[in-house]
Amino acid sequence: MVSRAEKERRLKQKARVIWLFGLSGAGKSTLANGLERALLADGFTTHLLDGDNLRSGLNRGLGFSDDDRAENLRRVAEVAKLFVEAGMVVVASFITPLARHRALVREIVGSADYLPVWVDASFETCARRDPKGLYAKAASGAVAQFTGRDSGFEVPEVDEGAWTLRTEEQTPDESLRTLREWVVPHLRCDGTKRA
Amino acid sequence: MVSRAEKERRLKQKARVIWLFGLSGAGKSTLANGLERALLADGFTTHLLDGDNLRSGLNRGLGFSDDDRAENLRRVAEVAKLFVEAGMVVVASFITPLARHRALVREIVGSADYLPVWVDASFETCARRDPKGLYAKAASGAVAQFTGRDSGFEVPEVDEGAWTLRTEEQTPDESLRTLREWVVPHLRCDGTKRA
Repeated sequence: MVSRAEKERRLKQKARVIWLFGLSGAGKSTLANGLERALLADGFTTHLLDGDNLRSGLNRGLGFSDDDRAENLRRVAEVAKLFVEAGMVVVASFITPLARHRALVREIVGSADYLPVWVDASFETCARRDPKGLYAKAASGAVAQFTGRDSGFEVPEVDEGAWTLRTEEQTPDESLRTLREWVVPHLRCDGTKRA
Repeated sequence: MVSRAEKERRLKQKARVIWLFGLSGAGKSTLANGLERALLADGFTTHLLDGDNLRSGLNRGLGFSDDDRAENLRRVAEVAKLFVEAGMVVVASFITPLARHRALVREIVGSADYLPVWVDASFETCARRDPKGLYAKAASGAVAQFTGRDSGFEVPEVDEGAWTLRTEEQTPDESLRTLREWVVPHLRCDGTKRA
């Protein structure tokens, strides 16, 4: 068998899972896409996992109840772990509303490889941005179990070990730069500049 | 979003799924491990998916009934597709006993990216080799739904488009060389020698 260590050496990186979580509208998708593009420019080998490429395939048939969300996230975490075993850097973007969901992800991925990032913006700000029109739909009652209303988002406690990015206090470009500067040192094998 | 095409260009390869199927003992695991090692030496970026890294994680809780096997294989195929979207070459090794299982994998992965390989050896040869001691257990009644006895293995028809590797007619080293020579041209972007 070809080991993970050998694959990481080949790709000249440490395989890690950067897990962006937070409310819809907090900026996760924009940051995840921008981060993957930035990491590619830095010479890393990455893959992006989000609801768009998981819900329609691997997680088809799962709904939005707490149990279905937990199974959804369990499968995503298992897939992220497979990518880590392949030596890849994973950027994951999921609401991951409950502390027990995040604990499950940490347990599956493994603490040493898990970089949780709370993309933090208030419910009011997210509802005002509403990039997918979900808050408007939820207000009209057309979306069941919408996080922040029917089902809760649990703000992470300090002992969850998540790094916090407050997107209300920066422009999107600034947030991305802040995130990139925090992430990249975690991925370097040797501290040297890549690419 | 970073496209698959961009990721393949970076990795200088065509992302494909080489799906080895056949009876337990036909030689799938040995070939899959050897093929991954060989492809790495040729400069490809690969990952191996097999029962060992899937059954204990993503597919925990699924059994060996036809339906559970189908769900098991559906999830593996969805994961293989995610790796292909990441630009990677996947080597998959699963019994995949029924034609409808293989059709499901082809449908999910997509015909253009799917390279099915039937690792063919007779039941008698596999039972004699019995590398995992499963045939002996099955003969004693200790393994339920063992492929080849309680549940059938459907030999692929010509129109399944599988390439056949008859491991009874070659040494393991010869089989691996034959497989590698068949696979590599499918993965090259430009026909040039790699690594």
